[in-house]
Amino acid sequence: MTIFVRNAWYVAGWSREIDDSLRRFTILGEHVVLFRKSDGSVAALEDRCPHRLLPLSKGKRIGDTVQCGYHGLTFDGSTGQCVRVPGQTNLPASASVTAYPTEERHNIVWIWMGDPAKADAAKIFDMPQFTDPGWAAHQGDALHLESNYLNVAENLVDPAHVSFVHPTTLGNAASENVPVHVRTDGEVIVAWRWIRDSEPVGFFKAFGGFTGNVDRWHYYYLHTPCTAVIDFGSIETEKKCAEEHRDRGVRIFALHFMTPVSATETIDRWMHIRNTAIDDDSAAARMDTLLRTAFAEDKEILEAVQREELRPQKRRPIRIAIDKGPMVYRKRISELIELERTEDVAADPSPAYVYHD
Amino acid sequence: MTIFVRNAWYVAGWSREIDDSLRRFTILGEHVVLFRKSDGSVAALEDRCPHRLLPLSKGKRIGDTVQCGYHGLTFDGSTGQCVRVPGQTNLPASASVTAYPTEERHNIVWIWMGDPAKADAAKIFDMPQFTDPGWAAHQGDALHLESNYLNVAENLVDPAHVSFVHPTTLGNAASENVPVHVRTDGEVIVAWRWIRDSEPVGFFKAFGGFTGNVDRWHYYYLHTPCTAVIDFGSIETEKKCAEEHRDRGVRIFALHFMTPVSATETIDRWMHIRNTAIDDDSAAARMDTLLRTAFAEDKEILEAVQREELRPQKRRPIRIAIDKGPMVYRKRISELIELERTEDVAADPSPAYVYHD
Amino acid sequence: MTIFVRNAWYVAGWSREIDDSLRRFTILGEHVVLFRKSDGSVAALEDRCPHRLLPLSKGKRIGDTVQCGYHGLTFDGSTGQCVRVPGQTNLPASASVTAYPTEERHNIVWIWMGDPAKADAAKIFDMPQFTDPGWAAHQGDALHLESNYLNVAENLVDPAHVSFVHPTTLGNAASENVPVHVRTDGEVIVAWRWIRDSEPVGFFKAFGGFTGNVDRWHYYYLHTPCTAVIDFGSIETEKKCAEEHRDRGVRIFALHFMTPVSATETIDRWMHIRNTAIDDDSAAARMDTLLRTAFAEDKEILEAVQREELRPQKRRPIRIAIDKGPMVYRKRISELIELERTEDVAADPSPAYVYHD
Repeated sequence: MTIFVRNAWYVAGWSREIDDSLRRFTILGEHVVLFRKSDGSVAALEDRCPHRLLPLSKGKRIGDTVQCGYHGLTFDGSTGQCVRVPGQTNLPASASVTAYPTEERHNIVWIWMGDPAKADAAKIFDMPQFTDPGWAAHQGDALHLESNYLNVAENLVDPAHVSFVHPTTLGNAASENVPVHVRTDGEVIVAWRWIRDSEPVGFFKAFGGFTGNVDRWHYYYLHTPCTAVIDFGSIETEKKCAEEHRDRGVRIFALHFMTPVSATETIDRWMHIRNTAIDDDSAAARMDTLLRTAFAEDKEILEAVQREELRPQKRRPIRIAIDKGPMVYRKRISELIELERTEDVAADPSPAYVYHD
Repeated sequence: MTIFVRNAWYVAGWSREIDDSLRRFTILGEHVVLFRKSDGSVAALEDRCPHRLLPLSKGKRIGDTVQCGYHGLTFDGSTGQCVRVPGQTNLPASASVTAYPTEERHNIVWIWMGDPAKADAAKIFDMPQFTDPGWAAHQGDALHLESNYLNVAENLVDPAHVSFVHPTTLGNAASENVPVHVRTDGEVIVAWRWIRDSEPVGFFKAFGGFTGNVDRWHYYYLHTPCTAVIDFGSIETEKKCAEEHRDRGVRIFALHFMTPVSATETIDRWMHIRNTAIDDDSAAARMDTLLRTAFAEDKEILEAVQREELRPQKRRPIRIAIDKGPMVYRKRISELIELERTEDVAADPSPAYVYHD
Repeated sequence: MTIFVRNAWYVAGWSREIDDSLRRFTILGEHVVLFRKSDGSVAALEDRCPHRLLPLSKGKRIGDTVQCGYHGLTFDGSTGQCVRVPGQTNLPASASVTAYPTEERHNIVWIWMGDPAKADAAKIFDMPQFTDPGWAAHQGDALHLESNYLNVAENLVDPAHVSFVHPTTLGNAASENVPVHVRTDGEVIVAWRWIRDSEPVGFFKAFGGFTGNVDRWHYYYLHTPCTAVIDFGSIETEKKCAEEHRDRGVRIFALHFMTPVSATETIDRWMHIRNTAIDDDSAAARMDTLLRTAFAEDKEILEAVQREELRPQKRRPIRIAIDKGPMVYRKRISELIELERTEDVAADPSPAYVYHD
């Protein structure tokens, strides 16, 4: 059984990862070769010649086509159709590779791995702060995790782990027993909590300049299937900040774009958008350093969990109160996969069954 | 099909391997976290949180409990029962991990991996020389072998291999055709032979101070399933030593405690007890060096055999005269596994069958 | 299903690879131990003792026998029969290992992995240039390829790949669209093409001393299952060389002896025979350097293809015009394997069926 949702936009790479050369990426278990065409747009082809299976990324570009490095079969970068077979003049119709739709926004390249007819660019994740002059956006790393994306996503809709996994960076013991709130908002699952009147955590000691106690918040927005926005920040307790006025504090959006690589690997491309030090590149670099430390803590946990999942199970895992967000997420993913796995043709339902919802 | 006997005491480690910190050991294919509680006794818990499967060894000790490093679930070191779930007040009964009985004797920590109700500490292997002042006990290494424990155990009830595998250390060509005797003594299989009136082997040239010919013996005592005692020694031929007076010669017990790690891996913890140079630590160190050489010879053989066993078989292996001990051992292990695999409830046998033994 | 043809002569090694010591080779997925007997001929035994499965190559030679390193069972190098079991006097008839027929010709050791009754030394590959004083034969490397032999063999009956895989050594763009001819000649598949009146390729710039345009040829002779002869050369275009007078040009035979190691590995032992610079060892060494470069290009392609073949397939591969030679080859191999897989006992066919061919 697949664990992948195909009809969705995934991040193929930061814009800076893709240039004129042929580069292989692995997404949802498939090898894809990406390159920029002469007009700057991104071509994405199945990375396997249909003749002798050589990866096209081992061939060479000729204009906006790719020539296989074994026998010279050549494929159009936009359509995937074969345009040349050396040694013969006819071009068999079956000689083609899959071409995947791509879109580029805010220096991020998105790819659609599912049914091309359903690829709607309007559904690509966006948020106004990408272009708002009051905010600064900054791309971090492409972190490779030996863990399936479901475990990674759970971690990104789970405020409760912060106290235990990130005690010196993003959390501290003050939040251990603070309840987590969860709601859904269309395709988005939101989990959040406020920790009021406590010592600032490491990150905001470094970047907020706080001396006294603060109110701090974590809002986890998980967009099904693979985009997470973590809205976290702090504000002086004495300012008695209302939940909807978080912009008045020091506020950071940590964005995570998960790209499932295989059933046991995920790339987490993370970046941030901040409303503080917005012209200060060195602050961005220092934030990266701190976030890199925190995400390495997650990596250790997630990879250990993956290794255990691959071993024999003696009992069913238990679910606890803080798991509400992950449980909603898993259920939604299962429904999406089931929807893609079957074809519902009951447009005109048989009168033999009357279904009462 | 398992190859493991569960209802048995296994060596988890030398006492010096286990301290206050959380350490993972793998025994019978299961990960176990071990640590010393505040009273010095050894806790042994299943090394996997029942919530998100993180190994507990990646968490931290809080008194005699272990706190999971992901969401803080906390387990009692003695019972395995969950004593805290952050974010909720009720503690689900199913929130527990297996706790394994342990015992410590003569600086060796034993663990019971089977039904706790059957764990009888009186059955742990012992011998009077551990505490006899006329003898010196000395722990050697924990030797990791890429071989299942059955092959290792066969090697430890098999005097015949010594001439061919250890020609420069423990054996020599004089013994190649000397017959092997085998008997059983309750749970113990004994295989032995005497080589009379021959040149001393390397070990006893080094430690016995022999100049002329000696009588030498090898007695292999294999305690089912995983403890072996090799009683070997030499005495001047002119002393005409009777078999039961081996203490009059230079006598060494090499003890091997096999801990099955997986279906293809075993740890062999070996030590010796000697009646010579009993206050001489440097002699113990030199014996270790020599034994280490010999056991490395076994390791090469055993790992090559394991690799071959994992490959396709063209024919059934043959058994020869010297295999009596190994054959009895394999049969006993098969019976023990079958006994554990099924549940015999015929306490009150049906009158419908009359079984004539 | 096997991919191996058993009833065939395979190259076990260059003569220089085999000496008095026990050396393990892996051929058709089987481990074989080879050594020279006292008369210089090559013994080849199944490399596994039938007792405890230890590879015999870990034992030692005693005259023309091999003694197992575990318990001393000893096997005759010519017949594989057990001639000694230490500790017992009777020799069980089932105590034997397979002995494989071998032959040595022109410094090449051949082995027969199939039914010994069918091993006919007259069928070993030969060609008169091995011993003709007008030619020089020179052995190259044993190149290990992480690719099954079928892919390697395809590459060796495929002139069309040369333009794309070896553009700087053995081919150039002039040949990209030149048609390939294919015919069969008994057990041999021949694929060839002539590229007339074009610039010499790298190899013949280096060794032919050509300044102007040349006619050049590639003849690929694939002897089923695993021997390939590539006859390639060049001659000045102005000499108007007929196809059958290739000896008048600079002519090289590149020989490839493929030894299937496993279902995904092959050793390609390559050598050449040349009619130029026949007393010049340094020319041979320089040719090796150039051929090594070219075959490393093949290795990269073949190993990438193997990796793709092991991944899930979305569609059937396509076949194109230049694939005639590989297609005939695959069909012949399939027929040979089917012939070996079953036993046709219809010597006296039943009258119940009348088969009209």
